[in-house]
Amino acid sequence: MTASDTLGAIGESATLQRIFPRLPAAASALLGPGDDAAVVAAPDGRFVVTTDMMIHGPDFRLAWSSPHDLGWKAAASNLADVAAMGAVPTALVVAIAAPPDSPVSLLEGIADGLRDACAELAPGCGVVGGDLSASTTLSIAVTAFGDLSGRAPVLRSGARVGDIVAVCGVLGDAALALRLLFTEAVGADGEPSSVLAATLRSRTAAQLAPRPPIGAGQVAALAGATAMLDLSDGLAIDAARLARASSVRLDFDSAALGPDPLLALGGGEDHSLLASFPASVPLPVGFRRIGVVVDGAGISLDGEPYDAGGWDPYTGWNGGQG
Amino acid sequence: MTASDTLGAIGESATLQRIFPRLPAAASALLGPGDDAAVVAAPDGRFVVTTDMMIHGPDFRLAWSSPHDLGWKAAASNLADVAAMGAVPTALVVAIAAPPDSPVSLLEGIADGLRDACAELAPGCGVVGGDLSASTTLSIAVTAFGDLSGRAPVLRSGARVGDIVAVCGVLGDAALALRLLFTEAVGADGEPSSVLAATLRSRTAAQLAPRPPIGAGQVAALAGATAMLDLSDGLAIDAARLARASSVRLDFDSAALGPDPLLALGGGEDHSLLASFPASVPLPVGFRRIGVVVDGAGISLDGEPYDAGGWDPYTGWNGGQG
Repeated sequence: MTASDTLGAIGESATLQRIFPRLPAAASALLGPGDDAAVVAAPDGRFVVTTDMMIHGPDFRLAWSSPHDLGWKAAASNLADVAAMGAVPTALVVAIAAPPDSPVSLLEGIADGLRDACAELAPGCGVVGGDLSASTTLSIAVTAFGDLSGRAPVLRSGARVGDIVAVCGVLGDAALALRLLFTEAVGADGEPSSVLAATLRSRTAAQLAPRPPIGAGQVAALAGATAMLDLSDGLAIDAARLARASSVRLDFDSAALGPDPLLALGGGEDHSLLASFPASVPLPVGFRRIGVVVDGAGISLDGEPYDAGGWDPYTGWNGGQG
Repeated sequence: MTASDTLGAIGESATLQRIFPRLPAAASALLGPGDDAAVVAAPDGRFVVTTDMMIHGPDFRLAWSSPHDLGWKAAASNLADVAAMGAVPTALVVAIAAPPDSPVSLLEGIADGLRDACAELAPGCGVVGGDLSASTTLSIAVTAFGDLSGRAPVLRSGARVGDIVAVCGVLGDAALALRLLFTEAVGADGEPSSVLAATLRSRTAAQLAPRPPIGAGQVAALAGATAMLDLSDGLAIDAARLARASSVRLDFDSAALGPDPLLALGGGEDHSLLASFPASVPLPVGFRRIGVVVDGAGISLDGEPYDAGGWDPYTGWNGGQG
C-alpha cells in the first residue's frame, strides 16, 4: 500500500482492473462483465432473484468487519435467500459505492470475500456484473440468482398443520457474537475498536462472516419441504412470518432450541434455513426438529403464545458507524 | 404530510405497505415480492442482467431532482443497458437506502417514478422485488433483466469496417441541461436551488428524467445491428469503448451531430443507443446515420483523430450534495 492507492487517486478503470481478476467466475455466465449487461443461463426457463444492500453504520462497522468479511457476508446473506426458495445459486451482480478516499485494498478485500464465499458456500456461483460508484457511505448492493431445476419454489405459505418444523444451521450465534462486539470490542472512548475485535475473532465469526447452509436449500426442496425461509431477523420474527403466510401457528420445543432458547428465538442474522416438512417424510441430513405446525396464528413456545417482537432498519439504527 | 410521516417514525413494514401498491407489476413475474426471492420467467433459457447505483451527491441533487425523477431515471438508465444488448426489459429489482428522517413521500415518489418509467419506456416490465435499508446517504440500486427471444445479444465487439454508425435518441441534451442547472439553478449562497430549478424544468428534463429509446434496442437487433451500446458517459467516450472492443475506428460526420458537435460528442447521460449496421441494410426507423466504421483505433471527427477523454466517478465528484 502506498498513500496514492486510493480509489480517487487511481480512478475507476484501474480499480476495475485490480478487482476483476479476483472475482469468481460463474458457470452460468454466457456473457460476463464488460458489456452493457451480462447474459446468464436459466436452463429451466425461470430464474430466482433476490437483492439486499449492506450499509456502513446500520449493517456493519469497519472497525469490526474486514473488507473480506464484507464481501463474504454480502454474498452469504443473498445466497441464503436463494437457497430458501429451494434453488441453487448461479450468479451474483454487485454494485458498490465507496468514498473516493478509500484504499483500493478495500474493494480488493470485498472481491476476495465474494470469491471465497461463493467457492465455499455455493461452488459454481460467481459474479457476472456490477457497478462502482462514489458515495460518502460505503454501500454494497448484491443481487443473487438461482436455478430451480424444474422444481416449484418452496414458499413461506406452504406449511400445513401436523408438519414438522426443522432448522438447518446455527440459532443465536450471530446475535451472541454481536452482543460480544458491543460489550467487549468498544474502546474507552465508546468507539468500536479493531484491536479489541481482533482478540475476539473466533467467537464473532458467526456475525462477521456467517456460513449459512446454502446447499441445504435444494436438499430440503428435494426432501419435500412444504415451506422454507432464511432466518435473517431472528427465529421468532421469521417464524411468525412463515406462520402468517401459511395461516398456521408454529409451536417450538424449548428443549430443542439449545442452552439459551430465548437467544435462539431472538437472535438475528444467522441466515440458517427454517423449513416445514410433512411428518411422514424423514428429515433430510442437516435439519433438526425444533417444533411442529399447529392450528392457530403466530408462534408459541412449549404451547404458550410467544410475542415475536420486531426489527426495523429505520427505527433500530442509532446513527453510529465506526 | 404530517411531521410524523418519516421512515423512522412509521417503520419499514408500514412504508412497504405504502410503496407496494404503487410499484409496477411485471408480466414476467411468476412470483413477485413478499418471499425470500422472486421467480421470473426466462422463456428462452437465458436472461440479460445489468445493475447500476444512483447516489445522492455524485449522481443527483435533491434540490433539482424530484423523488419521481429519481425513480424514473434509476429505471430508465438501467432499461437502456438492457436495450443496448438488443433485449426487451422484463423486470427490475430495486434496493433503496435512505436516511431515517426522510419523508415517506420520498419513497412513494421514487416508486411512482419507477412505475411511470416502466409504463412509458418498457410496457410489461415491472418491479419483482427489492430491499429497504437505512443510510445517511440516499442510494438507489436497480438491477434490470431482459429477454433476448432467442437472439444473440448485440455486443460492443461486433462492429466491422464499412459498417454504418447510427444513433437513436438525443445527443448532448442531458449535458446541456446539467450545465444549465449548474449555472442557473444555484442560489446566491452557491447551493442548488429547487425554486430556480423549477423555472427551468422544460429545458432540464433530458437530464433529470431522460427518455431513452428502449424499444429501439430490439428493433436494432432485428435489423441486423453488429454492435450496440448505451450512451451513458458521452458519445466520444462510449464510442471509443465500442471501437476498442471491435478493434476498429469510428469516424463521425460533424454535420450529422447537430448544431454543436462538441456538445454531442462530450455530453453524458443521454442514454441514447449507438449502433453499427452493415451498409447493405436499411437503417431501422428511429436511427440516423452519424458516421462510419473504418480501419484503425479510437474515434475521429471528419477523418481527424479525436481524443475521447474520460469520466471517472471517483475523481469526477467534488463532494457536493445539495
